[in-house]
Amino acid sequence: MFTGLSAFPLTPLREDRLDAPAFERIVRMLAGSGVDSITMLGSTGSYAYLDRGERQEALATALAAAGETPVIAGIGALRTSAVLDHAQDAQDAGAQALLLAPMTYQALTEDDVFGLFSDVLERVAVPVVVYDNPGTTHFRFSDALYGRLAALPGIASIKIPGIPAGITAAERLAQLRDVVPPEVTIGISGDAFAADALRAGCEAWYSVIAGTLPGPALRIARAALGGDPSATAEAAAAMRPLWSLFARHGSLRVVAAIAEERGLVRAHPLPLPIRGLGERERAHVREALAAVPGG
Amino acid sequence: MFTGLSAFPLTPLREDRLDAPAFERIVRMLAGSGVDSITMLGSTGSYAYLDRGERQEALATALAAAGETPVIAGIGALRTSAVLDHAQDAQDAGAQALLLAPMTYQALTEDDVFGLFSDVLERVAVPVVVYDNPGTTHFRFSDALYGRLAALPGIASIKIPGIPAGITAAERLAQLRDVVPPEVTIGISGDAFAADALRAGCEAWYSVIAGTLPGPALRIARAALGGDPSATAEAAAAMRPLWSLFARHGSLRVVAAIAEERGLVRAHPLPLPIRGLGERERAHVREALAAVPGG
Repeated sequence: MFTGLSAFPLTPLREDRLDAPAFERIVRMLAGSGVDSITMLGSTGSYAYLDRGERQEALATALAAAGETPVIAGIGALRTSAVLDHAQDAQDAGAQALLLAPMTYQALTEDDVFGLFSDVLERVAVPVVVYDNPGTTHFRFSDALYGRLAALPGIASIKIPGIPAGITAAERLAQLRDVVPPEVTIGISGDAFAADALRAGCEAWYSVIAGTLPGPALRIARAALGGDPSATAEAAAAMRPLWSLFARHGSLRVVAAIAEERGLVRAHPLPLPIRGLGERERAHVREALAAVPGG
Repeated sequence: MFTGLSAFPLTPLREDRLDAPAFERIVRMLAGSGVDSITMLGSTGSYAYLDRGERQEALATALAAAGETPVIAGIGALRTSAVLDHAQDAQDAGAQALLLAPMTYQALTEDDVFGLFSDVLERVAVPVVVYDNPGTTHFRFSDALYGRLAALPGIASIKIPGIPAGITAAERLAQLRDVVPPEVTIGISGDAFAADALRAGCEAWYSVIAGTLPGPALRIARAALGGDPSATAEAAAAMRPLWSLFARHGSLRVVAAIAEERGLVRAHPLPLPIRGLGERERAHVREALAAVPGG
């Protein structure tokens, strides 16, 4: 479950409530696409904006729609007690694993974050993925903290945010493997980094785009993990205009626009105050999509 | 209400629930101290960590304890619909004004933030303070956005985070007064900047330290607003060791330790995953406090 391609679906809203029929269609589409797992209630799934009842409804909807595809569920919240509630709910609903990012309002110390993961692992029976997403959490993991967490029983995988400038994916993975034991997988996020990172030895791709366009993501993942450099390069090159839009507007606004464009969700699926892209930006999204074979 | 010293109390927890008796004691102490207003459920009041029911209980407690001292209530949340709920609750409880910071998980655009404030102002009858706290929200207001917001009917004050390096407080205030009309007050936060900013013409000090040690803050505010430079300098100098600790550990952890030290709250008043200061840091807090006359 912690290798290959994990797709991060949107949790679409309709008039500020969960659009359960649209969410079910998306999860069913992903389950039918051949992705290796579905990670619901990730950042792309707007977990941070949803209350406990909404998350429970989303869990019930997704777990009914996912069939045999394993479901990892995000459980993050600003307060430990809320994280523990979400963890219990996700387990009770049948999620096979949990994803936890250290959300912040007040800056957290490494000991705060270690304590959060320890408190969760004491209470849960399913594996936990460490979710390092500094663009949204503003918490920066050190490699030493990765190492401390990876040594905790129950940590199954670490989702890293990308490859820093000035270092190759292979060099970065070697650094990480110095502190992370082999039974804990390392997964790349930051879709633009995925092709290189998978070729360099990342075992998983935790993917925003795969939650809305699983086909093009699967082509990259299969070529990269199958050791076909030219097919990887070709599949990855077609996505570059989309990655530029991710960088400019944030991946969430772009995949929401794609989902609207494809009729997967209704207009305005994101939680306010996040407004969707304007008409000019949507035209750029359509252009970028036109370059993606099967996109 | 939007001038002078506004004290930001802690919202203390006890075993992960609101410690209402301790909170009531703190608010009563502040009301008796002579501060010009009390801003509850600010960042120091852990608003971001509290659910709707907890905030309602805190509102009822504080408004009963504040007597004649005006109460401004924080209403921030990640989602607009939650902000509107909190605004309604605060108004219903009797808060005289509202404080709103643009909390973020996904980065917000200026139009997102303008839309958030507009949506709130359409629904509320009491004035709103714009809360610019980039250290916690990671949103950076431009001066142009200050200007757009200050022009909205209902905006009463702007709480600025401090004075940027390389510019004097007077120069910064002149820049702000170019875009903010005179009927909207400008208040300083970042306690370390307060003495200079008040002397340079800031009309209000939105103060963390005043929520726990109102006396020393009142001395600075009265000297600065009363035009007594030497008394201002003396009162401000005594606080410098505390400001250093604020910078090192975050003001919240330091004021929580002071409140514990003074018996205002029980041990561990902060919401996990935020752990309090360790014993060594608490010794530094005690040393810094010893330098504060009446602290």
